[in-house]
Amino acid sequence: MAAMTELRQDPSTRNWVVIAPERGRRPDVFRAQRGRLPGDAACPFCPGREAETPGELWRLDGPDGNWRVRVVPNKFALLAGDGSARRHVSPEGFVAMPGVGWHEVVIESSDHGADLARADDAAVRNVLEAYRARYRELRAGGSALVIVFRNHGPGAGTSLAHPHSQIVASPVVPVQIRQRFDVAMQHYDDLGTCLYVDILGRELSDGRRVVLEGARFVAFQPFASASPFETWIMPRFHQPSFGDADDDALNDLASILRSVLSGLSRELGDPDYNYVIQSAPVGDEGREYFVWHLRIVPRLSTAAGFELGSGMLVNPSRPEDTAAALRRAIDQDEGMRRGG
Amino acid sequence: MAAMTELRQDPSTRNWVVIAPERGRRPDVFRAQRGRLPGDAACPFCPGREAETPGELWRLDGPDGNWRVRVVPNKFALLAGDGSARRHVSPEGFVAMPGVGWHEVVIESSDHGADLARADDAAVRNVLEAYRARYRELRAGGSALVIVFRNHGPGAGTSLAHPHSQIVASPVVPVQIRQRFDVAMQHYDDLGTCLYVDILGRELSDGRRVVLEGARFVAFQPFASASPFETWIMPRFHQPSFGDADDDALNDLASILRSVLSGLSRELGDPDYNYVIQSAPVGDEGREYFVWHLRIVPRLSTAAGFELGSGMLVNPSRPEDTAAALRRAIDQDEGMRRGG
Repeated sequence: MAAMTELRQDPSTRNWVVIAPERGRRPDVFRAQRGRLPGDAACPFCPGREAETPGELWRLDGPDGNWRVRVVPNKFALLAGDGSARRHVSPEGFVAMPGVGWHEVVIESSDHGADLARADDAAVRNVLEAYRARYRELRAGGSALVIVFRNHGPGAGTSLAHPHSQIVASPVVPVQIRQRFDVAMQHYDDLGTCLYVDILGRELSDGRRVVLEGARFVAFQPFASASPFETWIMPRFHQPSFGDADDDALNDLASILRSVLSGLSRELGDPDYNYVIQSAPVGDEGREYFVWHLRIVPRLSTAAGFELGSGMLVNPSRPEDTAAALRRAIDQDEGMRRGG
Repeated sequence: MAAMTELRQDPSTRNWVVIAPERGRRPDVFRAQRGRLPGDAACPFCPGREAETPGELWRLDGPDGNWRVRVVPNKFALLAGDGSARRHVSPEGFVAMPGVGWHEVVIESSDHGADLARADDAAVRNVLEAYRARYRELRAGGSALVIVFRNHGPGAGTSLAHPHSQIVASPVVPVQIRQRFDVAMQHYDDLGTCLYVDILGRELSDGRRVVLEGARFVAFQPFASASPFETWIMPRFHQPSFGDADDDALNDLASILRSVLSGLSRELGDPDYNYVIQSAPVGDEGREYFVWHLRIVPRLSTAAGFELGSGMLVNPSRPEDTAAALRRAIDQDEGMRRGG
């Protein structure tokens, strides 16, 4: 298990920062270039090396008796352990707490070279099943927020090539999430409607940024996309927590997610990207004013000093244009799949 | 002049996003790798090519009659023109406005290969003088917020190698800035003191993260630094707006900034970095609860899905350690300078 990390509160924003130095890592290591991703031979996520990832938390076996998806603790956990999240105030007035919580890795396939963008719907469904099972477990364990995310490619922060996602259970609700909820609550108090249901309704009504419609989900690029090809996949129904998604929902989400990732890969040439499931904090899951959704953010632009200083983001493209390009790519893709 | 951009409001955060597609740029351009920086021969900021940057806004000449620093309009302005910032609400309810405002480039030297980290104090002082002159002009022109920033190196978003900074005058105060002010205002209402004066006092009292002390400014790495070697340079006196800095302040800031940039360059091998001057919005410049300061953020870590999903930031280093390393580097540097 990694050394205990620390959460520190930025007094000027009330944001929590995870201070996570690797043990024995000295400041001059930042001189070095980013290391290469380890090859297949050394990959700890490949079959036959299960002993290198002890403490398996969840597993899905195929009909052949071999595993399809495994969930294990992250060896380099940002948050670890079920200790107390009690705050410590230094004599100078700085606020910190131990980095308690959970950090898990979802190994998405036994195939080192697999990729969600090239998988079939059933394989994507298996991964979503793992997310949901662990989400429910972590939510029940007293965490404040459960965050499911995927980093694809070195530019998106991946350190291992074997396809995987991650789940972090945090002992605090970060300020950014609270603020998003505040905006939605005020909308609800003013208008009596759910902001996220309204956003989806507006996007469907406008239509130019809609990428793909399923029975239960819609993929679209939001009106104020902060980066090129940013795509949200949102349920058509009101549901604040991803943990409450049923089997039909996972099936439809798997199909749309696979289509969108495949289309992005075709259009952009296997881009680095992150995706994240935005879900209500634990305890806010009965609220009327939030809908969980999945956000895919390809890493195509670099935030610079202006964004850092203002918090305003710059998108060098119009989501109407990138949504149209993604629709075309998905159409071609589906044509290829149907045509053989 | 660039095509008019658009500001769009993200309904879920109330953040403003600048939608700034380059004219004629098609979505498939994102396939392409980032272009190379142009060489000296094609550099529009070099002497003899002044006609390529028309509309000079400010200029400082040396005793030889040649210019030392020039300020010109940014040809690829994020915000441009003094039109109305009137909001437009679409039939669906989306809020947008034209991207009015100003975006300027501070050409820091006539020498294409110059670098603030290797300049002398007087050269850095000239650049700060340009910032202040333009800040005052833009503040008087009715903007809501003036942001001064510098992008150094491709990883920090630079598109031209010739040393330069940028200044943007925005027609709106972004949500991030408002929230920072709200936190400071509540601190003031609760305790009757300026949060930023208190932060500096705490850092000086703790001492472990202090990098360098001048007569009027202190450089330190904040308690909850969000990235390795993030360094703030803050006045010892209460002053909300950079535009109100006097000559003595600029002299001391120039000296500390030069030392810190030089130390970072020595310690990290000329890292990519951004710096930004955080200053009060126009109209809030008489407030009791803010102190302008300069933040330097080397680009040494990659935000990934966790940061995107939670808004919590991960610093893979402890600021106590990186501050000590930077102090040592500055000491060595100053020793070298003194020794010749």
